[in-house]
Amino acid sequence: MKPLLDEIRHNRLLWLLAFVPGVLALERAKPDAHTLLFVLSVLAIVPLAALLSRATEAVASRTGDAVGGLLNATLGNLTELVIAITALYAGQIMLVKASIAGAIVANTLFMLGMSFLLGGLKHRVQEFNRAGARFQAGLLFLATVALLVPSAVSEADATAATGFTQTLSVALAVVLIVTYALGMLFSLWTHRELFASVAHGEEGEAPWPVALALATLAGVTVLVALVSHVFVDSVQHAAEAFGMTPAFVGFVVVALVGGAAEMASAFSGARKNRLDLSVGIALGSSAQIALFVAPVLVLLSYVIGPAPMDLRMWPGAIVMMLIAALTAALVTNSGRSAWFVGVLVLVVYLIFAMTLYLLPPGAG
Amino acid sequence: MKPLLDEIRHNRLLWLLAFVPGVLALERAKPDAHTLLFVLSVLAIVPLAALLSRATEAVASRTGDAVGGLLNATLGNLTELVIAITALYAGQIMLVKASIAGAIVANTLFMLGMSFLLGGLKHRVQEFNRAGARFQAGLLFLATVALLVPSAVSEADATAATGFTQTLSVALAVVLIVTYALGMLFSLWTHRELFASVAHGEEGEAPWPVALALATLAGVTVLVALVSHVFVDSVQHAAEAFGMTPAFVGFVVVALVGGAAEMASAFSGARKNRLDLSVGIALGSSAQIALFVAPVLVLLSYVIGPAPMDLRMWPGAIVMMLIAALTAALVTNSGRSAWFVGVLVLVVYLIFAMTLYLLPPGAG
Amino acid sequence: MKPLLDEIRHNRLLWLLAFVPGVLALERAKPDAHTLLFVLSVLAIVPLAALLSRATEAVASRTGDAVGGLLNATLGNLTELVIAITALYAGQIMLVKASIAGAIVANTLFMLGMSFLLGGLKHRVQEFNRAGARFQAGLLFLATVALLVPSAVSEADATAATGFTQTLSVALAVVLIVTYALGMLFSLWTHRELFASVAHGEEGEAPWPVALALATLAGVTVLVALVSHVFVDSVQHAAEAFGMTPAFVGFVVVALVGGAAEMASAFSGARKNRLDLSVGIALGSSAQIALFVAPVLVLLSYVIGPAPMDLRMWPGAIVMMLIAALTAALVTNSGRSAWFVGVLVLVVYLIFAMTLYLLPPGAG
Repeated sequence: MKPLLDEIRHNRLLWLLAFVPGVLALERAKPDAHTLLFVLSVLAIVPLAALLSRATEAVASRTGDAVGGLLNATLGNLTELVIAITALYAGQIMLVKASIAGAIVANTLFMLGMSFLLGGLKHRVQEFNRAGARFQAGLLFLATVALLVPSAVSEADATAATGFTQTLSVALAVVLIVTYALGMLFSLWTHRELFASVAHGEEGEAPWPVALALATLAGVTVLVALVSHVFVDSVQHAAEAFGMTPAFVGFVVVALVGGAAEMASAFSGARKNRLDLSVGIALGSSAQIALFVAPVLVLLSYVIGPAPMDLRMWPGAIVMMLIAALTAALVTNSGRSAWFVGVLVLVVYLIFAMTLYLLPPGAG
Repeated sequence: MKPLLDEIRHNRLLWLLAFVPGVLALERAKPDAHTLLFVLSVLAIVPLAALLSRATEAVASRTGDAVGGLLNATLGNLTELVIAITALYAGQIMLVKASIAGAIVANTLFMLGMSFLLGGLKHRVQEFNRAGARFQAGLLFLATVALLVPSAVSEADATAATGFTQTLSVALAVVLIVTYALGMLFSLWTHRELFASVAHGEEGEAPWPVALALATLAGVTVLVALVSHVFVDSVQHAAEAFGMTPAFVGFVVVALVGGAAEMASAFSGARKNRLDLSVGIALGSSAQIALFVAPVLVLLSYVIGPAPMDLRMWPGAIVMMLIAALTAALVTNSGRSAWFVGVLVLVVYLIFAMTLYLLPPGAG
Repeated sequence: MKPLLDEIRHNRLLWLLAFVPGVLALERAKPDAHTLLFVLSVLAIVPLAALLSRATEAVASRTGDAVGGLLNATLGNLTELVIAITALYAGQIMLVKASIAGAIVANTLFMLGMSFLLGGLKHRVQEFNRAGARFQAGLLFLATVALLVPSAVSEADATAATGFTQTLSVALAVVLIVTYALGMLFSLWTHRELFASVAHGEEGEAPWPVALALATLAGVTVLVALVSHVFVDSVQHAAEAFGMTPAFVGFVVVALVGGAAEMASAFSGARKNRLDLSVGIALGSSAQIALFVAPVLVLLSYVIGPAPMDLRMWPGAIVMMLIAALTAALVTNSGRSAWFVGVLVLVVYLIFAMTLYLLPPGAG
């Protein structure tokens, strides 16, 4: 337990863990205090996500490069996955879809842009590994295309039966997962030296014993599930109270909450002039959500949840994901960055968030 | 006055200034001779625009690099701004929007393509500063995204109230102007050495006294405003007389007339193998219209003009601007050019112009 | 005749020529055996296409670089052209359009992706001439824009008369053919050294006498026309029998059959680590179809065929062509390739094919 307690003592973000029992207790006592429950559950998820990603890295660092990379690649977005499964179980398919699209856009634009900006304010011009960035941007572009097709086709054709969209979504889900697996084979095995400097682990930290890491992983996952349950139940009511549209909540709030831990790592990497790390986390995380989390949720929706989920998104989400993927491809192409590149990317995100915030409820 | 008279003597384009009193006199005498008024006002605006841009540069060259760059960046499209304000004042919002979109597309495709072609016919392979081109292309891409969002959203949602589009347009206008200001901070101050060779001024010309430059700037602006008034009043009637659709007039004719002076500089730079200059003028001018002129017009429309203007464009304009931005990003990416690159870019412009020319009136 | 017989003896693909008399005989005997006729005509077209491209190269190799390149560039897709003319003559305009769009997408994605994959499985990292790839990708992008415009405009405007679309299509066809001619002038004449290593011919083969090559060219073209006639007549019936949608048949089956010969050359080039050759064939063939075959068919449709053909495509085809052109631009930009790049490109094609296969008949 000592490494875990040390970690908590040194990382102030983890002090927020105090909210975990708080929110669970309040939910028993006052299940109708939706707004308070929403705020507390957000404050509780952030440190849990941080702990989850720390425990994943601890397990990964003990298992050698390839397996460790594999673990990072599959469990790196465990928080998002657990939140989404909770929402799926509750039948809130629109929230699941909005949070998938939102996480892709937030990681690609907000996390990347803020890394460029924070890094650029400290370092005049920063360089990063183009091969890694191109690989992730390529995966992301492919995933966006895959998500675009069922929407484009069913958009154009009101006559296309729902059955068609569902069959297509399942087929696409399988194709995406296989592609993701091949991508890991490529980046972790056959051509891993191309991605050399995109190291995910933080050096210079005391190693955790494997048993502790695995126990933390399991325990925290359960806690995330419990808090997510409160979060998903309260989010719609809270949105109304704050005057936010459902689209804004799913796309912006859930995405930023779910990704808080990774953002902390990416920003700290950027400030230390290790932009490879930041770009790898931002684009890698987007690609992982698009090629692994989203298809897994489609397949899971046939097992859990009241109704199967397809991959069809509303047109606005498609446009935003396409623009995000294109922006990522354009700005990472040169392998160099300065503060204004970060501003450009952030402004694209700001425009999207602003539009969703102003959008009248019921539309979108 | 001597430098001004020298300039007029040497620059044959300025001989067209003779049409300025002509058109103003004719408007008093025969206010219904729309077609003749239209032709004369076009012939009068072109030399005024050239003089305006010469006077701006003269002021800029006296005020040091940063302030001079700032002046160039804000007054460089003064002609377009004055024409648009005149149209806004007359309540011709569609003409304003068409001329904004048209100026962006004309500068990005026609000015850039013609520079590549004219330069390439004289020089086998030309190189230019990629950093500068990437910066401008990035700004342009961002601006296109900003202009796309209100259209995409209000397109998808007939239920979205007009109020939403207007609030969003004002918010976007503020974001764009702030981004433009940060972009100038970046390119003129914190990272100005990256843009070293994109010099706007022409060397080897006799400097103008500041007083003369300022007086010319003020006087010519008034003349442009007067002639623009005639132009805006006559353009619709003339379009019918020439069998041109309103979309073609706003998008192609107004844009080419307004940008004539900058085109002359860009083409002359390309022939002298100073392609940095040409690319900087073409893309910089597009970015400036999208990030400065357009949002300023949105904000101004609340002060002058019968009705506020939003940033919503018709779908065809969005598609053309997106393709123009994408084309610019693709062709400037390599930092090299040959004549056929110019042909490719010009053909894209030709296709757009042809489509608008053939489009039946009432459509589009 | 000896070189021709040698060729047939050594190239097993050509043994399929036995099906040519077979299919023609069967069509006389049993004109209603549609499914069998379809299968046999496919099997007969493949070797004819191979022979046609071999004869074209033989003529080209005798006529010097520039004229040879010209011949290759105009006759390289003769098979596709003959099939399309046969379909046009039969009034099957939708089949013609689907096969044009399908050939562009198949060459850009399937041929390029498979070349990257096959080459990458044998060679760790492969490099190719970026200048050539960029030139072809630029032509392809331009052509996609040209094909997009009539569809986008007539999509947005139900009021736009059919007359407008037809006039615009003819104008675009002329512009595209002129651009293609200028592109050949550029790549075969004024700047041919930039494209040095994109050699189309296979070295080390016995040269054919010109008379034999010309005779083969003429004779095989007639045979392709005869077999295409059977193919076009049987394809719709066979599609129903196999449970395939018409969109899938035109877009995937016809495109792969028509391009089989070029694919064989491209794949063999990739395995020999001559990726320049593969990229040149794949993108060059796409560009040729878009800028030469498609516009020629539009112009021809006024001479032959019951009704004139325009360039308007259905929205799904536009989206697929745009994504294909963008994918080609992104993956060829670095001038390097590894096996996973091939997987990415192939998966995009797989997603398109899958969607068309699953699409309910009547939709799309």
